[in-house]
Amino acid sequence: MGHLFKVAGSTLALAANLAIVSTSHAVEPISPITAPTNIHSEKAELGKKLFFDPRLSRSGFISCNSCHNLSMGGADNLPTSIGDHWQQGPINSPTVLNASLNVAQFWDGRAADLKEQAAGPIANPGEMASNHTLAVSTIASIPGYRQAFNEVFGTESVTIDTITDAIAEFEKTLKTPNAPFDLWLKGNEQALSQQAVEGYGLFKASGCTACHNGEAVGGSSFQKFGILAPYATDNPAEGRIAVTGNQADRFSFKVPTLRNVELTYPYFHDGGAATLSEAVDIMGKLQLGRHFSEQENAAIVAFLKSLTGDQPSFGLPALPPSGPDTPRPKPFSQGADTGMAH
Amino acid sequence: MGHLFKVAGSTLALAANLAIVSTSHAVEPISPITAPTNIHSEKAELGKKLFFDPRLSRSGFISCNSCHNLSMGGADNLPTSIGDHWQQGPINSPTVLNASLNVAQFWDGRAADLKEQAAGPIANPGEMASNHTLAVSTIASIPGYRQAFNEVFGTESVTIDTITDAIAEFEKTLKTPNAPFDLWLKGNEQALSQQAVEGYGLFKASGCTACHNGEAVGGSSFQKFGILAPYATDNPAEGRIAVTGNQADRFSFKVPTLRNVELTYPYFHDGGAATLSEAVDIMGKLQLGRHFSEQENAAIVAFLKSLTGDQPSFGLPALPPSGPDTPRPKPFSQGADTGMAH
Repeated sequence: MGHLFKVAGSTLALAANLAIVSTSHAVEPISPITAPTNIHSEKAELGKKLFFDPRLSRSGFISCNSCHNLSMGGADNLPTSIGDHWQQGPINSPTVLNASLNVAQFWDGRAADLKEQAAGPIANPGEMASNHTLAVSTIASIPGYRQAFNEVFGTESVTIDTITDAIAEFEKTLKTPNAPFDLWLKGNEQALSQQAVEGYGLFKASGCTACHNGEAVGGSSFQKFGILAPYATDNPAEGRIAVTGNQADRFSFKVPTLRNVELTYPYFHDGGAATLSEAVDIMGKLQLGRHFSEQENAAIVAFLKSLTGDQPSFGLPALPPSGPDTPRPKPFSQGADTGMAH
Repeated sequence: MGHLFKVAGSTLALAANLAIVSTSHAVEPISPITAPTNIHSEKAELGKKLFFDPRLSRSGFISCNSCHNLSMGGADNLPTSIGDHWQQGPINSPTVLNASLNVAQFWDGRAADLKEQAAGPIANPGEMASNHTLAVSTIASIPGYRQAFNEVFGTESVTIDTITDAIAEFEKTLKTPNAPFDLWLKGNEQALSQQAVEGYGLFKASGCTACHNGEAVGGSSFQKFGILAPYATDNPAEGRIAVTGNQADRFSFKVPTLRNVELTYPYFHDGGAATLSEAVDIMGKLQLGRHFSEQENAAIVAFLKSLTGDQPSFGLPALPPSGPDTPRPKPFSQGADTGMAH
C-alpha cells in the first residue's frame, strides 16, 4: 500500500507538473511551428528544381534561390536585392522560410499566396526579367522537365500555372520546426537561457506580440511602420497603399515573420537595420514609444535568436539539361528578343 | 566426373568471358572514375560552406557555386560568366566536377591546382571583386566559421591559405562515378546502346582519344585549338601563351574533360558551340580534318552522353550567420572602400 501510494504520488506530481507547463504555455501568443501537411511530394520535388533553376530568368543566371537563398535563411542578406543586369531592387527580399504562413505575399501583400507570388519575379524586368511565355517555352523545351510535369500533372503541357503551382508546393515544405523557443513552449525549460526567457517576457509586456504573434511570429497582418514617429529612409516604398489605394495604408507593410530572424538580416523593408539590436531599438522607439535599455535590448535579441529553427535539409537538386530547342539565356543582350536557339 | 567436367567447363567459359572483357577494356584509353581518396571530411564540409558562400564576393551575391553550379554540371551554362556588377566574363566557366584530375586549373593552366585556383576569382575585379584581405576578415568575423576553422586547422586564425585549402578539399570530393560508359568499361555490356558503342569506336578511330583520354577523358594536357584551320571567334583569349610567353602556345588551351559534357554546354573556351553535335562537328573539322556524317556525329554524341556520372549528392549547406563585426556586402557601390560595418 505504501509502495502503491508512492507510485500514485509520483504520477500525481508528474501530472501536476505537466498541468503547470501546459497551463503556462497554452496561453502564449506564439505557437510552435507545425509540420507542413498535405504535401504532394513529387510536385514539391519538381518545384525544388524549378526554385533552383536560373533558366526561369532571361539571363540564365538568377533563380528563386538567388534572392531567397536557402543556405542563408531564405533571404539574400542584402539591403535590397540584385536583379537582371545588376539592377538594384526596390525592397528587401523577405525570407521564403515559413512564408506559407503569411496572410499574403510581398511586403505590400499584392499576391494572395505563394503560387501567385512565384509568378511575379519571373516576369519582373528588374528581377528575373523573363516573361511567362519565354519561361514556359524554356521549361517545356527541357526533356527532363516535360517528363516530370507529365508525372505530376498528367500532361507534358507546361503552363505558368503548373510551374508556379510546383514552386509553391516546394515552398510549403520550407517550415523550420524545433527552434529552441518552440522546444521551450512545448515544456523543455532547458531550451531557453534565462536571458531569452526574460527577453520573451519583455517582448510580450512591451506589446511586440500585438503584431508578432502566432505560428510565424508575424506575417498575419499589415501594420503601419512608424506609428509614433516616421521611419527615416530614402526608400520610396509606401507599402499597402500600392494595393488598396487607401491613404490609411500609406507606410503599412506586412508584419514580417520573426522566425529565423537571426539569419535574415538586414532588417525592415529597406534593409536599413544591419543588426537585430538596431532593429529592436528602432521598433521600440517608432512602434511602441519605448526606449529599451542595453540590457533589455540584449534580452530581446536573445529571445529572437531562439526563434531559429531547423533549416531546410535536402539534397541539392540536379537540374535536367536543356534540349536542342531550349531558348538560350541572354545574359548580356539588352532589349526584346526571342531568346530562341539558332 | 561428367558433372565435375561440366562445372569446370562453366568455370573455364566464365573465365574466358572475363578474360575477353578484361582484355578488351584493359587497353581502353579511358578509365573509370575512381572514388576520391584521402578526403579530410571536416575540412571538405567547411569547404562546401565556403563554396556556397557569397560573402567571399564584395557584393555578397556571387559564390563559387554561381559560376560552377553544382545543380548544373558544375558550370553555369552561359557562353561566358557573369561577374560583379554584371560584368561579362572573358571565358567559358569550366566545370568543377572532376577538376581534381586536371593537370592544372583554368583554360590556360595558370593555377597549379585547385587550391591556387580558388584564390583567383575571389580577388578578380571582374568576378567576385573582393580581395584576400577583405575575404579573410569577412570569414574570420563570422563566429560559426571561426569555430569550424578551429576544429579543422587547430586555430581560429583564418587565412586565404586555409580558406582555399578547405574549398579545394571540398572540390576534390566532386567526382562523378558510375557513368554508363564506366559501367560498360567495367564489363556491363548492357550499359551502353549500340549507337554509343559505335560512337566510342569512331571516337577512338578518329583520334579524339589522343587528347581526350584517361580518367577525366581530357584535362591532362594542353593542345592547340585550331590545328587544321583557325577557330573562328571574337574571343580574344590566346590560351597558354599568357602563361608561358611562348609563341608556340598561342591558342593552346587545356583539353577540357569530357566527363558530364552533356551538362556543361555551351562548349569551347568562348562557349561558341551551343550543342554537342555542333562541338563534335567543329572538333572533327578543325582538329582532325574529318567531316563526320550526320549518323557518325549522332553516334559520337550518344557516346559523349554516356559520360554523365552520378552528380554530387549532398545536403544544401546552412551558412553560419554574419557577426556584428562582419563587413557588410557592397553590392551597389563602385570603387574602393573598406566594406566595413558601421
